[in-house]
Amino acid sequence: MSFTVYLSGEVHTNWRDEVIQGALSKDLDIEFLSAVTDHAASDAAGDLLGEESNPFWRDHKSAKVNAIRTRTLIENSDLVIVRFGDKYRQWNAAFEAGYCAALGTPYVTLHAEDTVHALKEVDSGAMAWATSVDQVVGILEYVSKGRGPA
Amino acid sequence: MSFTVYLSGEVHTNWRDEVIQGALSKDLDIEFLSAVTDHAASDAAGDLLGEESNPFWRDHKSAKVNAIRTRTLIENSDLVIVRFGDKYRQWNAAFEAGYCAALGTPYVTLHAEDTVHALKEVDSGAMAWATSVDQVVGILEYVSKGRGPA
Amino acid sequence: MSFTVYLSGEVHTNWRDEVIQGALSKDLDIEFLSAVTDHAASDAAGDLLGEESNPFWRDHKSAKVNAIRTRTLIENSDLVIVRFGDKYRQWNAAFEAGYCAALGTPYVTLHAEDTVHALKEVDSGAMAWATSVDQVVGILEYVSKGRGPA
Amino acid sequence: MSFTVYLSGEVHTNWRDEVIQGALSKDLDIEFLSAVTDHAASDAAGDLLGEESNPFWRDHKSAKVNAIRTRTLIENSDLVIVRFGDKYRQWNAAFEAGYCAALGTPYVTLHAEDTVHALKEVDSGAMAWATSVDQVVGILEYVSKGRGPA
Amino acid sequence: MSFTVYLSGEVHTNWRDEVIQGALSKDLDIEFLSAVTDHAASDAAGDLLGEESNPFWRDHKSAKVNAIRTRTLIENSDLVIVRFGDKYRQWNAAFEAGYCAALGTPYVTLHAEDTVHALKEVDSGAMAWATSVDQVVGILEYVSKGRGPA
Amino acid sequence: MSFTVYLSGEVHTNWRDEVIQGALSKDLDIEFLSAVTDHAASDAAGDLLGEESNPFWRDHKSAKVNAIRTRTLIENSDLVIVRFGDKYRQWNAAFEAGYCAALGTPYVTLHAEDTVHALKEVDSGAMAWATSVDQVVGILEYVSKGRGPA
Amino acid sequence: MSFTVYLSGEVHTNWRDEVIQGALSKDLDIEFLSAVTDHAASDAAGDLLGEESNPFWRDHKSAKVNAIRTRTLIENSDLVIVRFGDKYRQWNAAFEAGYCAALGTPYVTLHAEDTVHALKEVDSGAMAWATSVDQVVGILEYVSKGRGPA
Amino acid sequence: MSFTVYLSGEVHTNWRDEVIQGALSKDLDIEFLSAVTDHAASDAAGDLLGEESNPFWRDHKSAKVNAIRTRTLIENSDLVIVRFGDKYRQWNAAFEAGYCAALGTPYVTLHAEDTVHALKEVDSGAMAWATSVDQVVGILEYVSKGRGPA
Repeated sequence: MSFTVYLSGEVHTNWRDEVIQGALSKDLDIEFLSAVTDHAASDAAGDLLGEESNPFWRDHKSAKVNAIRTRTLIENSDLVIVRFGDKYRQWNAAFEAGYCAALGTPYVTLHAEDTVHALKEVDSGAMAWATSVDQVVGILEYVSKGRGPA
Repeated sequence: MSFTVYLSGEVHTNWRDEVIQGALSKDLDIEFLSAVTDHAASDAAGDLLGEESNPFWRDHKSAKVNAIRTRTLIENSDLVIVRFGDKYRQWNAAFEAGYCAALGTPYVTLHAEDTVHALKEVDSGAMAWATSVDQVVGILEYVSKGRGPA
Repeated sequence: MSFTVYLSGEVHTNWRDEVIQGALSKDLDIEFLSAVTDHAASDAAGDLLGEESNPFWRDHKSAKVNAIRTRTLIENSDLVIVRFGDKYRQWNAAFEAGYCAALGTPYVTLHAEDTVHALKEVDSGAMAWATSVDQVVGILEYVSKGRGPA
Repeated sequence: MSFTVYLSGEVHTNWRDEVIQGALSKDLDIEFLSAVTDHAASDAAGDLLGEESNPFWRDHKSAKVNAIRTRTLIENSDLVIVRFGDKYRQWNAAFEAGYCAALGTPYVTLHAEDTVHALKEVDSGAMAWATSVDQVVGILEYVSKGRGPA
Repeated sequence: MSFTVYLSGEVHTNWRDEVIQGALSKDLDIEFLSAVTDHAASDAAGDLLGEESNPFWRDHKSAKVNAIRTRTLIENSDLVIVRFGDKYRQWNAAFEAGYCAALGTPYVTLHAEDTVHALKEVDSGAMAWATSVDQVVGILEYVSKGRGPA
Repeated sequence: MSFTVYLSGEVHTNWRDEVIQGALSKDLDIEFLSAVTDHAASDAAGDLLGEESNPFWRDHKSAKVNAIRTRTLIENSDLVIVRFGDKYRQWNAAFEAGYCAALGTPYVTLHAEDTVHALKEVDSGAMAWATSVDQVVGILEYVSKGRGPA
Repeated sequence: MSFTVYLSGEVHTNWRDEVIQGALSKDLDIEFLSAVTDHAASDAAGDLLGEESNPFWRDHKSAKVNAIRTRTLIENSDLVIVRFGDKYRQWNAAFEAGYCAALGTPYVTLHAEDTVHALKEVDSGAMAWATSVDQVVGILEYVSKGRGPA
Repeated sequence: MSFTVYLSGEVHTNWRDEVIQGALSKDLDIEFLSAVTDHAASDAAGDLLGEESNPFWRDHKSAKVNAIRTRTLIENSDLVIVRFGDKYRQWNAAFEAGYCAALGTPYVTLHAEDTVHALKEVDSGAMAWATSVDQVVGILEYVSKGRGPA
């Protein structure tokens, strides 16, 4: 069985690339999925539907177009990695963690120690808390390779 | 991941062909599904089960045979495009939009500006409202191509 | 066991009152639920959240506020009566019928004979097609009173 | 039918009291539910199960005891109001909004205009965005009082 | 907690009355539900919707009106008793047993020993097979009275 | 999209072969599934688990081993054909129809006109009633071939 | 909102009474549910359906009659307390914990420190691990009393 | 259709290898899945996330990492075989059986006769009780090979 893993959260560092490269280097049988991570493209996802003078509605339209993609991908995933960086509020990451919790889809958080208290509710529903990409790759290796008898 | 998209609604124009051609021209990884769009064949779908003197029952039998196909296809779709044309009442299109809403399947409406008020409940549950096939193809491209890091 | 019945569709005639009076006159143990049927109030449901210059967004906001009410009521109902009148397109009625179909909630349609062909998909998922309020009340009486042995 | 409304998010202002008082003053038939809003008590919810030297595990135990309460209450609610204040990251509020989104439970956000862009994904799944308690109470009045014909 | 029990199947003997009397005599806290058991009334349940010349459609209309009642009652039951008598084919009883099996609603069959082989699939999904009303009442007493410590 | 069709019911005639040959002759893209139709093998399915002196328990064990297969197959099917022959009670066929009804899986009945009244509840939940294998094959062709625009 | 709590597991000590008395002494708004805890009565629950010479089938019949009660009660509970004592294997307690985990029903384990390693999978899905009745009562008080603003 | 079978329970004997070899020797179309069965590796699954001084939390972290794998595999299985050996308490096996019961996933138990009474609740929800690997392989052969007409 192959695993499908959705990478959620922070878009300002290249942690997704690092996870995917780590998995490739270990030859893991995993399909990675992700939201559109080009920030400007994501903010403009609804612009093709017509201009909006009110910024709320521009955001609204773009967020919904993005949600067509992200909700479908999350609902097709076996595991979700949710990354909280040290900048911005990243409410979307917490929103997707809550979405997983209600679906019963396992998720792993990836964040530094200084946000432990602020993320305690999010972490309490997670299957693991990781502080580094290496730990995430380690979990993916264990979970996807760990076979029973041949 | 490939996307599966069901094309619902109006059968009197060739908007389905235009959407499919648009997707082909952009090389999108999408499987398109649809009800039988040959109006006469659809009306006669139940005739092989025996003639009916009462037109209500002829319609009833045909509609149910069609529903074997349409409900299965909708339940296997990631996204539904619902087209409302400028003729006929097209209650079936609104019915299928409501079906999607209850399943939690995202749908996008495609209709002209003059039906905005009449379709407000249908639109309020949609992920987007498009007025042209080009916009629909634009959404399909964004949603299906928008990859994270390679 | 008491039945809960949601009355969906046409708001321009007093058919809801007639159904409720008919049920009262037969002393049926039924709780009736309904969307807000004051057309102007319903169109303005979102206005308290701020004005919109674009009529699409005004409709959008009102339709969503109405949906908080209608979807909760439908999901709490045992049976839905969906009325199609002879005016307007009434896409919302067909939308709510589709919503019921996907939930597995039984619904009964109430419409005249001249819309039989246009409503064949909606009718094919219904438990009954009625042409008069008396027939609807008759079904409600049979369904809610019909007890087994005492 | 009575409505059950869960009040989620910010615990540092008395917005919950204001909503409840507003509802009382209008005599609305609503049961309000809420997490434990005494911050210190909430942080200490797991302490009765034994001390922890590692703050992560203290938070973990308390967050899970709180989750027994909050998830049960959310799953019993018809509507959730999610408040984002101007301080702290409030990931828990976004987490609960995501939880509602996946359950299909309607939610309304309550936050100031300056967080519109940061909350666009959360808002895009909401039934309404309110900026004041008065607006929230207005929605509750409309939704819970809005009866059909008598 | 009170139990709700639906009595399904044979309508040609008074086994329902016997079960209900047995439960009354033991003062069990059970609400009993049942389809309409007046055979002629049940066959005519759809007649108020208009006459049918084709007996298939008369049966069809009546069966659907009955299903409004029976499916709602089954979905509200904690336990279903399914009685197979020694006459007629009683496909409806087997149909309702299959309906329970798919819902995960526990059911108990009540039939004589000579139909054991014919009913093996139905019995294999049941929580018990009873051959007498006394046994059914015994199960109801055990299940509904059996309290833990006071 | 390929369709998966489960063939349920009567095992004493070769109607399954006829349906499958009919589908082959029309080159339909359908996977057919079925219970074990060798009657003696089916009755003995549990014998490898040890002998039983009581025929009820022999039947019980075999029926459960068969159910491992049949329930999995039904839950993986898009459409079920349920055949009622003119001999035996065939409660299992009605049981599987009820199972489909509760799952929301569409099913088509196949039986002669003289059992119309006895099967009215089973038929009322079906998408069609067929009286011949040719009609079944006709439905399968329509449902699986009926494509939208190319 | 009142809480419903199911008490699962060990039947050889009076821990259920202690939990219930503790809750009474604190005036908690909780309904407690439980399997039949009279061991001999539970083992004999199926005897009224006829004697069995094979002890496996006697156990089988009794276990199924008990399951009518226990599964209904668990599915109606907001929280389950699962007690593992120091004697016997108590597979049933672990079985009910797994049942809760799959339903998404929160559960709390109650067991001594020396079974921590053996119960690690069961504990990892729990909302809390308690070692004393006092701790369980403390959780119940916090969860059921912890109100938001008045 | 191929079957997917998860092998749950005892890790101290090589019963998994025997089942898989038996299936291979009969050329069955089955994919086998399993938890990590290397006991030491399983206990250490969480160690890469950092050391824990408290053994409870070490177990907790490892059990959750293992659960990412096991719950995903169980939810993707058509059938689960649950093995109870004669040593250790094996609460995890009973936990996974309960998980299957709540999901409606069929499971077969594999254990010796002397644990019949202790496992009666687990067995009562199973589709079969086997005492040898040969019986398990026999069931797998019957279930996966048993085709209808060609």
